[in-house]
Amino acid sequence: MTTLSAFKCVACRGGEPTVTDAEIAELQPQIPAWDILEINGEKRLQRIYKLKNFIEAVALSNKIALIAEKEDHHPLIQTEWGKVTVQWWTHKIRGLHKNDFIMAAKTDELFG
Amino acid sequence: MTTLSAFKCVACRGGEPTVTDAEIAELQPQIPAWDILEINGEKRLQRIYKLKNFIEAVALSNKIALIAEKEDHHPLIQTEWGKVTVQWWTHKIRGLHKNDFIMAAKTDELFG
Repeated sequence: MTTLSAFKCVACRGGEPTVTDAEIAELQPQIPAWDILEINGEKRLQRIYKLKNFIEAVALSNKIALIAEKEDHHPLIQTEWGKVTVQWWTHKIRGLHKNDFIMAAKTDELFG
Repeated sequence: MTTLSAFKCVACRGGEPTVTDAEIAELQPQIPAWDILEINGEKRLQRIYKLKNFIEAVALSNKIALIAEKEDHHPLIQTEWGKVTVQWWTHKIRGLHKNDFIMAAKTDELFG
């Protein structure tokens, strides 16, 4: 099986459905450290990474920003002393697309 | 009057009082774009900066991170496409210290 992180984001211009519960059941085990939140009725993936200090948190945030810009898919990144919180979701479809699971897996590889 | 942004943070090791309402009334007009939030009973300064895109948001976040590390006082920085949300408060005293107003003023200068 090709790992999720090996995929690239596909263009999502809106109008597509969000992932189904069956798709979530298949994808989520590949990113077990991520939670699914619901904010204003929209699902998001969230993971909190613990780092040693502020500089390491900033460094991880910047690595995430680089892959985000490269894939043209942009998360919310919250940077604090020793902690980075990341949320992935797809604004245009107001919820989760397979792209978000791909980006979560790529984010995990940066932390790894 | 020396502007707030010209000050440096002073060491705050905890045990000091948070700023009084009278001090807030004096300091807040110097950073008029900042709101005072109360989260879990602790006051924080917050400002949302609007930027043109993701890269500009990341650039501002990094400038803020640099002055934070230099002053050894660390905010919460939330980076999104076209938007940076910053919160300053002093963890050790569970609220606002004059340092937070100084850092808010310095942050405004970065956005310039």
